[in-house]
Amino acid sequence: MTRKAHPLEARLGYSFGKPALLKQALTHRSAGPLHNERLEFLGDAVLGLVITQRLYQQFPDIPEGDLSRLRARLVRRETLAAVARSLELGNLIKLGAGEKNTGGSRRDSILADALEAVIGALYLDGGLGVAETQVLALLGERLDRWGDTPPDTRDAKSRLQEFLQSRGHDLPVYEVVATSGKAHARQFRVSCQVQGLPDATTGEGSSRRAAEQSAASLALKALGQPA
Amino acid sequence: MTRKAHPLEARLGYSFGKPALLKQALTHRSAGPLHNERLEFLGDAVLGLVITQRLYQQFPDIPEGDLSRLRARLVRRETLAAVARSLELGNLIKLGAGEKNTGGSRRDSILADALEAVIGALYLDGGLGVAETQVLALLGERLDRWGDTPPDTRDAKSRLQEFLQSRGHDLPVYEVVATSGKAHARQFRVSCQVQGLPDATTGEGSSRRAAEQSAASLALKALGQPA
Repeated sequence: MTRKAHPLEARLGYSFGKPALLKQALTHRSAGPLHNERLEFLGDAVLGLVITQRLYQQFPDIPEGDLSRLRARLVRRETLAAVARSLELGNLIKLGAGEKNTGGSRRDSILADALEAVIGALYLDGGLGVAETQVLALLGERLDRWGDTPPDTRDAKSRLQEFLQSRGHDLPVYEVVATSGKAHARQFRVSCQVQGLPDATTGEGSSRRAAEQSAASLALKALGQPA
Repeated sequence: MTRKAHPLEARLGYSFGKPALLKQALTHRSAGPLHNERLEFLGDAVLGLVITQRLYQQFPDIPEGDLSRLRARLVRRETLAAVARSLELGNLIKLGAGEKNTGGSRRDSILADALEAVIGALYLDGGLGVAETQVLALLGERLDRWGDTPPDTRDAKSRLQEFLQSRGHDLPVYEVVATSGKAHARQFRVSCQVQGLPDATTGEGSSRRAAEQSAASLALKALGQPA
């Protein structure tokens, strides 16, 4: 007996032995009782192991803390949502009416969760080998890009400070130049003045710290450093 | 060529193809550059997947949040340290002089980390199947004890409140009856008065909340409920 392949099976190049698993992985909890939350929980652990092992092997000499930060970068919601979008997962996820009407299929959290659930379904259907192959096909480009030199995982302010110190320059000066919005939705605008740059850079964010990071990142860019 | 089995290999009933992995897993970072921190990071992910999959299968009907709380209970430091002690790992861990002199081999964190590193080493040496068999041999008794009825993972106050409401009783009344110690080491003593119990129970803790939980737990016990 043959069945029609699910569009995602074609995109992944994998045919499920138990297509019900894939169906469940693409069902948001708003759409019914057999939804994807448990598969997402499983998939998160599968993804964690696959990425951890890959980083462990790709970077044999970096300490555990750096491995941890690199992993966090790969499995964070924004990254997973971007991968889900590249698979056009949005229009395959079954949502309840409320979620559908409020644009749930474009939301990062719903996309990232569904991708993790699909990874959980692949693991249950085909074992760790299948899940690993699929995860590395989806995230491998991001990993390959790093080669054997891990990116600097420290935050922008730390990297800017180190860069300036290595050149014997003064420390950057941050200043809050504006705040707006009410207490629960405050926005900060912070300037960052750096020796060697004619103009201060300006960052915005929902906290002073976030705005400073944004300004530091722009300063690194202006100095020709990776932001 | 034969080699003498490491004592832990005998205890686990597993012989390493690459005994250097086991040696590294049992080397604390205080003892030299080839220490177990990276293996611990890997082992943590292996342990996470094995336990997640087992809970997923053992409890097919409980929501993701309960799976998550059960997993946290199994992989927390105290549990892993107890398992490490049952393997007598303490006298097998290589420590630097400082750690050795301050009783490092009895410390929960060092024991739990070394156990995770051993799990990482088993995974690299034998693959997921070997690691899974070993993890379930070490933690399976705790899992088997739960059968197909997961323990109630809610905290004592929540369970006490629900128990009383289900009987149409009043809500419990908590009262701070004493505080002692200086600001940075405050101790609270809280009483819990419950309809149907002649005497209030009394709990202590380093926060009001912790003391309330302790008092609620004692009240559940006095009511013949799992505390």
